[in-house]
Amino acid sequence: MFNKRYVFHVIGLLMVLESLFMLVPAIVSLFYNDPNDLYPLLISSAITFITGGILWYFNRNPEKDIGKREGYLIASSVWIVYSIFGALPYLISGYIPDFTDAFFETISGFTTTGASILTDIERLPHGLLFWRSMTHLVGGIGILVLSIVVLPIFGTGSMYLYGAETSSAPSGKLHPKIKDSASRLLWIYLAFVGVLTVMLLLGGMNLFDSLCHSFGTIASGGFSPKNSSIAGYSPYIQYVIAVFMTIAAINFNLHYFLLKGAFKKIFSNEELKLFLIIMAGAILVIGISLFFIHQYDPERAFRDAFFNVSSIISTTGFANTDFMIWTPFMWFILFFLLFIGGCAGSTAGGIKVVRYLLLFRNIPVQFQKLLHERGVIAVRLNGEIIHQDLIFRTLAFFIIYLLVWVVSTFLLMVSGLPLPDSMGAAASCMAGCGPGLGSVGPIGNYEHLTNLSKWILSFDMLAGRLELFSFLILFTPYFWKAK
Amino acid sequence: MFNKRYVFHVIGLLMVLESLFMLVPAIVSLFYNDPNDLYPLLISSAITFITGGILWYFNRNPEKDIGKREGYLIASSVWIVYSIFGALPYLISGYIPDFTDAFFETISGFTTTGASILTDIERLPHGLLFWRSMTHLVGGIGILVLSIVVLPIFGTGSMYLYGAETSSAPSGKLHPKIKDSASRLLWIYLAFVGVLTVMLLLGGMNLFDSLCHSFGTIASGGFSPKNSSIAGYSPYIQYVIAVFMTIAAINFNLHYFLLKGAFKKIFSNEELKLFLIIMAGAILVIGISLFFIHQYDPERAFRDAFFNVSSIISTTGFANTDFMIWTPFMWFILFFLLFIGGCAGSTAGGIKVVRYLLLFRNIPVQFQKLLHERGVIAVRLNGEIIHQDLIFRTLAFFIIYLLVWVVSTFLLMVSGLPLPDSMGAAASCMAGCGPGLGSVGPIGNYEHLTNLSKWILSFDMLAGRLELFSFLILFTPYFWKAK
Repeated sequence: MFNKRYVFHVIGLLMVLESLFMLVPAIVSLFYNDPNDLYPLLISSAITFITGGILWYFNRNPEKDIGKREGYLIASSVWIVYSIFGALPYLISGYIPDFTDAFFETISGFTTTGASILTDIERLPHGLLFWRSMTHLVGGIGILVLSIVVLPIFGTGSMYLYGAETSSAPSGKLHPKIKDSASRLLWIYLAFVGVLTVMLLLGGMNLFDSLCHSFGTIASGGFSPKNSSIAGYSPYIQYVIAVFMTIAAINFNLHYFLLKGAFKKIFSNEELKLFLIIMAGAILVIGISLFFIHQYDPERAFRDAFFNVSSIISTTGFANTDFMIWTPFMWFILFFLLFIGGCAGSTAGGIKVVRYLLLFRNIPVQFQKLLHERGVIAVRLNGEIIHQDLIFRTLAFFIIYLLVWVVSTFLLMVSGLPLPDSMGAAASCMAGCGPGLGSVGPIGNYEHLTNLSKWILSFDMLAGRLELFSFLILFTPYFWKAK
Repeated sequence: MFNKRYVFHVIGLLMVLESLFMLVPAIVSLFYNDPNDLYPLLISSAITFITGGILWYFNRNPEKDIGKREGYLIASSVWIVYSIFGALPYLISGYIPDFTDAFFETISGFTTTGASILTDIERLPHGLLFWRSMTHLVGGIGILVLSIVVLPIFGTGSMYLYGAETSSAPSGKLHPKIKDSASRLLWIYLAFVGVLTVMLLLGGMNLFDSLCHSFGTIASGGFSPKNSSIAGYSPYIQYVIAVFMTIAAINFNLHYFLLKGAFKKIFSNEELKLFLIIMAGAILVIGISLFFIHQYDPERAFRDAFFNVSSIISTTGFANTDFMIWTPFMWFILFFLLFIGGCAGSTAGGIKVVRYLLLFRNIPVQFQKLLHERGVIAVRLNGEIIHQDLIFRTLAFFIIYLLVWVVSTFLLMVSGLPLPDSMGAAASCMAGCGPGLGSVGPIGNYEHLTNLSKWILSFDMLAGRLELFSFLILFTPYFWKAK
């Protein structure tokens, strides 16, 4: 039934790729001349290379006859496999001796969440810190390729959400146009990383920290090599990072249109408009409250509002202050932003702004139906009429998202975590943000949670990152039944 | 455009009816020989009678040509008008001198919520306490008639939810069959009140308290004339009330089928099945936790679990203990039950079990669509295929419900209420339950909230009671536009 050979073949290849990625932090370690992580990184790379190589070798030349099942299976399992092998450097070096913790830290990296179990980040040697930030870099490009390039091939109307130029290919084969758009994305992504690194260097940050923070920003990740995250840096650095967090939360297709000079497509993009309106509204309310209630000076009120709104809505999760000390309704706004997230086709997580657009546009239709049995207006997005099936699926997405959140919150409470902390941890991990509320807030971390809680949150991170359906479908009996 | 005369005509008539209702507590007051509330009740009745009479007189013999708009307008405004005039006895007697408080207490009664601003309930004279409980009685029959009899006339597929025998009448005229079913419901409702009153009397409760508690139970209201609610009564009384709260949360059409001996229709009702499964599950988890974690003896563990699960899922809100002292995950289960609620066609509020049925049955359909573009299975309810439009509307209902909840929670937080209290208050008032979390929990009340908060919660109570759409439609521009 399944084309298992093909699945193993691809995963094997991707593991070989991961083993090559691990050589980069090994070079960093060599540069800093630190044997504490050089050998662990090299050994991890070797293990990953050999395992992936074997998997690939015994499944070489698979039949090309694949369908959606194989696609979903590869898309989900590659994140898990990457996280298992990506945890090896932490384990072998002994800096994170527990497998649950190491796996949590790694999947948090690859899903660009940025939730950490480390209480003293700066204790880690440079090579490991670089690998930690590189998991963001790799995860960020992974999700872009997956969401803009791969998933639309499967159909189900996602191309409307991503506003992509790609059209559904009838077979599972990659269309040449699709390969183009993948490499195009990769270059835009790396260009942003490059530009940001330079801008951070100009602000006086050293090269190592600049690279790590760039990876964490453009991937909407949030891992920082510093214990105090961004709080110790100058306002200039904070503004630069806030701007780039916002950029990373915008559809990368739009960045491409910008390069091409297709401004009309950008200005007419309704998701971008709503995203900016939400951001502006949240910054305004929080900024004004910081000024009047907490008596910050205007510059700091604006900066803290901008930085934190940008950090949370982009689901990056960098911190420049502890927002838990603000008046509760102010962090409640940030908490609510966790449920919005960035734009589709960006590295940001969360429910995504475009889904809210469809949602809000559907509400008047429902009210009109109360008065006139027959539907009267169609839901449009960027001028195109949206098929009812997609709206339906969007509504179902909301519900399943909230169900997973509620069940996770409940399970965390059973482990003894208080209500706000549980709600915050589950919401933040599902959205791929990192900081939650209370003990898992911006100055807290996930170290004190039970192992079971860490596995639940790992599940949440992956489910959220893969937009629920693509991951949860693996848990349906239907998926595994013969066709 | 609107047939205003008809709307005013009906409201006038219904106000005259309300003025007659007010005479009942006046008789109670007379019996207890208390001038403190006798005259206020008589004056309130007179004011209501005269105002309603004038409204009716100047709009007599209206054209019978009405449509859905008039229906929705009457359905919504009658609750508001009843609550304004129903607040008069509290105001005139001076026992609740503030209009916001008096309105809150009255709309909480008519919507069968049971949220109270009274800190010392027993201070009120018998007449006022009886009126307070009577608002539940009137509100309970009101919602039954509205949901089982009136709303299905408007179409929009609600008859599937309520499992009613009524069919959509083409005009707004009441079908003779519909009048039958209204009076049938009234009798079943009053019979339950009678039986419960007798059973409470047998348990040693006095007649006055028995009547008040009966009204509060069968209407899923929750106002008690006692400060300690049900906590001061014997286990027998607690069990009796728990059983009747459950009964009141079951579709009253099923009670009718029971009387007719149509057992097959009851056993095959899928909503009832799921409702009982949810209740049993919650009782089991809470009961076992009370036994093992809090070391209650088995009888009390079962009783407290049964009573509180029944009280919350039926959205009654009677208290026999302070569940906020339980381990947090235990009251989180109760909190979650607030979002489930009872069965459709009962006096219970909340989202309703049948909507969850539709929701869960739609999820596999969505997953199958991921693999095969064309829908493959239909969603069925009690054997009948459910039209996609109804599922659509159900999903939209969930989303709007949650949006109203989140916005309400936020506004309450702005007023300074902590997060759990805000979440609990909004959820409990929307569901028509009463007790929330923290300071508005089972031993708290709503007295300390700001006036603005009380109006927000009054809005929530009404929106929740009228199943959102029928009320919120009044706030759409579309509703007020000429056809």
